Amino acid sequence: MLGGGGGVIRCKAAVAWGGGETLVIEEVELSLPQAMEIRIKVVSTSLCRSDLNAWLSHQIFPRIFGHEASGIVESVGEGVTEFEEGDHVLTLFTGECKKCRHCVSGKSNICQVLGLERQGVMHSDKQTRFSINGKPIYHYCAVSSFSEYTVVNSGCAVKITPTAPLEKICLLSCGVAAGLGAAWKVANISKGSTVVVFGLGTVGLSVAQGAKLRGASRIIGVDTNSEKSEKAKAFGVTDFLNPNDHDQPIQQVINQLTDGGADYAFECVGDTGIVTTALQSCCSGWGLTVTLGVPKEKPEIGAHYGLLLSGRTLTGSLFGGWKPKSDLPSLVDMYLNKEIKIDEYITHNLKFDDINKAFEMMRQGKCLRCVIHMPN
Amino acid sequence: MLGGGGGVIRCKAAVAWGGGETLVIEEVELSLPQAMEIRIKVVSTSLCRSDLNAWLSHQIFPRIFGHEASGIVESVGEGVTEFEEGDHVLTLFTGECKKCRHCVSGKSNICQVLGLERQGVMHSDKQTRFSINGKPIYHYCAVSSFSEYTVVNSGCAVKITPTAPLEKICLLSCGVAAGLGAAWKVANISKGSTVVVFGLGTVGLSVAQGAKLRGASRIIGVDTNSEKSEKAKAFGVTDFLNPNDHDQPIQQVINQLTDGGADYAFECVGDTGIVTTALQSCCSGWGLTVTLGVPKEKPEIGAHYGLLLSGRTLTGSLFGGWKPKSDLPSLVDMYLNKEIKIDEYITHNLKFDDINKAFEMMRQGKCLRCVIHMPN
Ligand SMILES: NC(=O)c1ccc[n+]([C@@H]2O[C@H](COP(=O)([O-])OP(=O)(O)OC[C@H]3O[C@@H](n4cnc5c(N)ncnc54)[C@H](O)[C@@H]3O)[C@@H](O)[C@H]2O)c1
Ligand SMILES: NC(=O)c1ccc[n+]([C@@H]2O[C@H](COP(=O)([O-])OP(=O)(O)OC[C@H]3O[C@@H](n4cnc5c(N)ncnc54)[C@H](O)[C@@H]3O)[C@@H](O)[C@H]2O)c1
Ligand SMILES: [Zn+2]
Ligand SMILES: [Zn+2]
Ligand SMILES: [Zn+2]
Ligand SMILES: [Zn+2]
Repeated sequence: MLGGGGGVIRCKAAVAWGGGETLVIEEVELSLPQAMEIRIKVVSTSLCRSDLNAWLSHQIFPRIFGHEASGIVESVGEGVTEFEEGDHVLTLFTGECKKCRHCVSGKSNICQVLGLERQGVMHSDKQTRFSINGKPIYHYCAVSSFSEYTVVNSGCAVKITPTAPLEKICLLSCGVAAGLGAAWKVANISKGSTVVVFGLGTVGLSVAQGAKLRGASRIIGVDTNSEKSEKAKAFGVTDFLNPNDHDQPIQQVINQLTDGGADYAFECVGDTGIVTTALQSCCSGWGLTVTLGVPKEKPEIGAHYGLLLSGRTLTGSLFGGWKPKSDLPSLVDMYLNKEIKIDEYITHNLKFDDINKAFEMMRQGKCLRCVIHMPN
Repeated sequence: MLGGGGGVIRCKAAVAWGGGETLVIEEVELSLPQAMEIRIKVVSTSLCRSDLNAWLSHQIFPRIFGHEASGIVESVGEGVTEFEEGDHVLTLFTGECKKCRHCVSGKSNICQVLGLERQGVMHSDKQTRFSINGKPIYHYCAVSSFSEYTVVNSGCAVKITPTAPLEKICLLSCGVAAGLGAAWKVANISKGSTVVVFGLGTVGLSVAQGAKLRGASRIIGVDTNSEKSEKAKAFGVTDFLNPNDHDQPIQQVINQLTDGGADYAFECVGDTGIVTTALQSCCSGWGLTVTLGVPKEKPEIGAHYGLLLSGRTLTGSLFGGWKPKSDLPSLVDMYLNKEIKIDEYITHNLKFDDINKAFEMMRQGKCLRCVIHMPN
C-alpha cells in the first residue's frame, strides 16, 4: 500500500488491458469500502480456469482478475458489523445475502442479490472501486484479487479462523470447494458407486477426492493431457483414460468398463460437447451428470431426449451447491482436521510479480493450482 | 376369434400397411404363446399419442399398433405360473423381468430385458406372433392391442383385480400412469409449489392431476390448442396459457407469473424445443424439468449451460418411473377408492370398426383419450 488521500488506497494490481494480453502490474487507486462493503488486504490468491477463460475473451477491459483468494480485512464500510479490521477472510465469487428468497430457501445457493456478477462492477451501484487516473478498471466476479487490496461486498466474503493457513486455504474460495460440493451436495455420491470425471484439473480432482471420501468403488478420470494421470491417482482416480488413446468414442469405452455406464458423471472441462459425452457415459435408470465447466464457446448443451426418458438426469452447480458464507467455514475445519486435502493441488507458488507465469502454465496444462503470494 | 389349427388363433386386427395410411381391419393369424408368454383377449384399448406418431413415421410396416390396453388371459405359454386363463390384465409397453440389475436396483424402471421394444418384434426371439398368409405383421412396443387377441411376454402384463372396470382402467396402461408418476415419483412435487405443464393431452393433464393431489398452489397449463383450457380446469390447472395469445416468448410470461420461474416444469408435447422452453420456465436454484414427450423429429434437446450451472435440473421418465408390474396394481386400487380420476380423460368411446376415427380425432386435437371397445 502506498497510502492515498481520503481513505483511498494506492496499491499494486495486475491489470489486464485486453483479451489475452500480458498482465501489467500497475499502481491503481482503490476507493474506500462503501456501505456494507469491506476492504481486504489480499494475502494469497490462486489462478482458476475461469479467470483464464474470461481473460481470453474480448469483453470488459481493462480488468483485474482473480476470485480465489484469502486475505485480512483492512477496513469496513458503513453498516458492516459482521467484520472488523484484522479478520481473516476468504472471498466469495458468488455471495450470500442471507435474506433473498433463495438464501432463505434452504435449497439454493444462487443468491438473487449477490450472485455471479458478470458486468465487471460492484453489485450495489454498478460502479468500479478501482481506477487509474480516474479511468475505471473493471472487477471480475466482484472479487478482483489480483491486487494487493480489493473491495468486496460484505456478503462476498466469509470470516474464517485465524489458525487456518491463508496461503493454502485460498483454494477453498473456488475450485476445491466447487468440486467437493458437486460430489457431496449435488450428486450425493453413494458408497460403492462408479464415477467418471471429465477434466482432471483442480475442479475435477476435487470431485475425485469427494468421490473417494464417499467410498466410490471406481473413479474413472478422463483427460486429453496424459500428464494429469499421475497426480490423479493421489486424489482417488482408479482408471485414467485419454480419449486420444482410443479408437472408439470415449463414452463407449466407459460404458464397457462400467457395464452400461457410470452412476455419476462430472464435466469439469468447460466444453458443452463434453457434457453430452458425460451424459452418454452414465447409466440409464439413475445415471446423474453434473456439469461444472464454464465453456469458452458453444454455450448450448445437446442431449438426445432418449437419454433422459430412460432415466438419466442432468444438473449443474456453481460453487458445488454450497451456500458460500454458511458452509465454507466447515470446509476450513475439515482441512484443519486433515479430513480433506488442499496442499496437493498447489503445484506452484509464485510471487505477485510473476503472475503471468501462472496464466502461461495453466494455458499449457502444466499446473493444477499456482498460488500467488502478495507482498507483505 | 375364428378358431384355427394347432392353437393358432384367427382373429381381427387393425393393420397399418404404411405410414399414415388408414388402418384396415384384417383377419390375422396369431400363434400360440411361446414359453413365458401369454395370449390375451383384448377388452378395451385406447389411443395414445405415441401410437399416432409411430404410425406417421415411415418405419416397420405392416404393423399392429396399440399399447394402452386391458384384457383377459386366453392361454399361457410354457413355464408361465403367474397367470392363468381368465385373469384380468393390463398390458405393459415397458416390461419388468424382476431379475435384471435395473429391476432389482430399487431405483430404475428401465428393465434391461423387457424394456421398450423398438423393432416391432417380440423381445425373446425377435420374431412376430402375427401373420397374414405367412407374411409377418409387426408388433408395436411388444403389445399390439389393436387386435381382438394379442400375445405378450408374461413380463409385459400385470394381473389386476377382476372388480376393476376394464373399459376404463386401460388408460392406466400408459398415459395416465405416465403423468401421475412423473408428478409423484420423478418430480416428487411438494405442497404449495408452482408447476407448469406444457401439452394438455392425457399425459399433461395426468401430471396436473398428480400436482393437484400433492397440493401444488399453482398449476399453469400451456397448450397451443385453446379448446384444452376447459377440460384442463377439471384436472387442477389454475392458469391456462396459449403461447399464440402472447407477444412475448411464453417462458417470459411464466417467469413473470411465478416471480422467477416455476418449481417444476413438465414437457408433455413431444417436441424437444418445448423441453428447452420448459427448462427456461423453471426457477434457478432448484427448478426441475421433466420431459415425457416422444418427439417425432429433432431428437436433440438444447440447453444453455447457464440454466444448469445456476441449479436447474433436467430429467425424464418412461411410464412415470413406475416399476410397471410392481406398482400398477396400487394405481388401480387408488382408482377404485376414488383417489384418482380416470373416466374424465375418456372423451370418446368407439367400436373397433371405427378405430380410424380415433386416429383422426387425436390428429385434429379433438379428444383426450378415445377408448376402443373390442367385440365380445
Ligand atoms: N461451477 C463452478 O463453480 C466452477 C468453479 C471453478 C471452475 N469452474 C470451471 O470448471 C472448469 C475446470 O476448471 P479447472 O480450474 O479445474 O481447470 P483446469 O484447466 O485446471 O482443468 C481442466 C482440465 O480439462 C482437461 N481437458 C481439456 N479438454 C479436455 C477434453 N476435451 N477432454 C477431457 N479433458 C480435457 C485439461 O487437460 C485440464 O486438465 C473450467 O471450465 C472452470 O471455468 C467452475
Ligand atoms: N414418457 C412416457 O412414458 C410417455 C407415455 C405416454 C405418452 N408419451 C408422450 O407424451 C406426449 C403426449 O402424449 P398425449 O397422449 O398426452 O398426447 P396428446 O396429443 O393428447 O397431447 C399433446 C398436447 O400437446 C399440445 N401441443 C402441441 N404442440 C404444442 C406446443 N408447441 N406447445 C404447447 N402444447 C402443444 C396439443 O395441442 C395436445 O393438447 C407424446 O409425445 C407421447 O408420445 C410419453
Ligand atoms: Zn473459479
Ligand atoms: Zn441472497
Ligand atoms: Zn403411450
Ligand atoms: Zn428387468
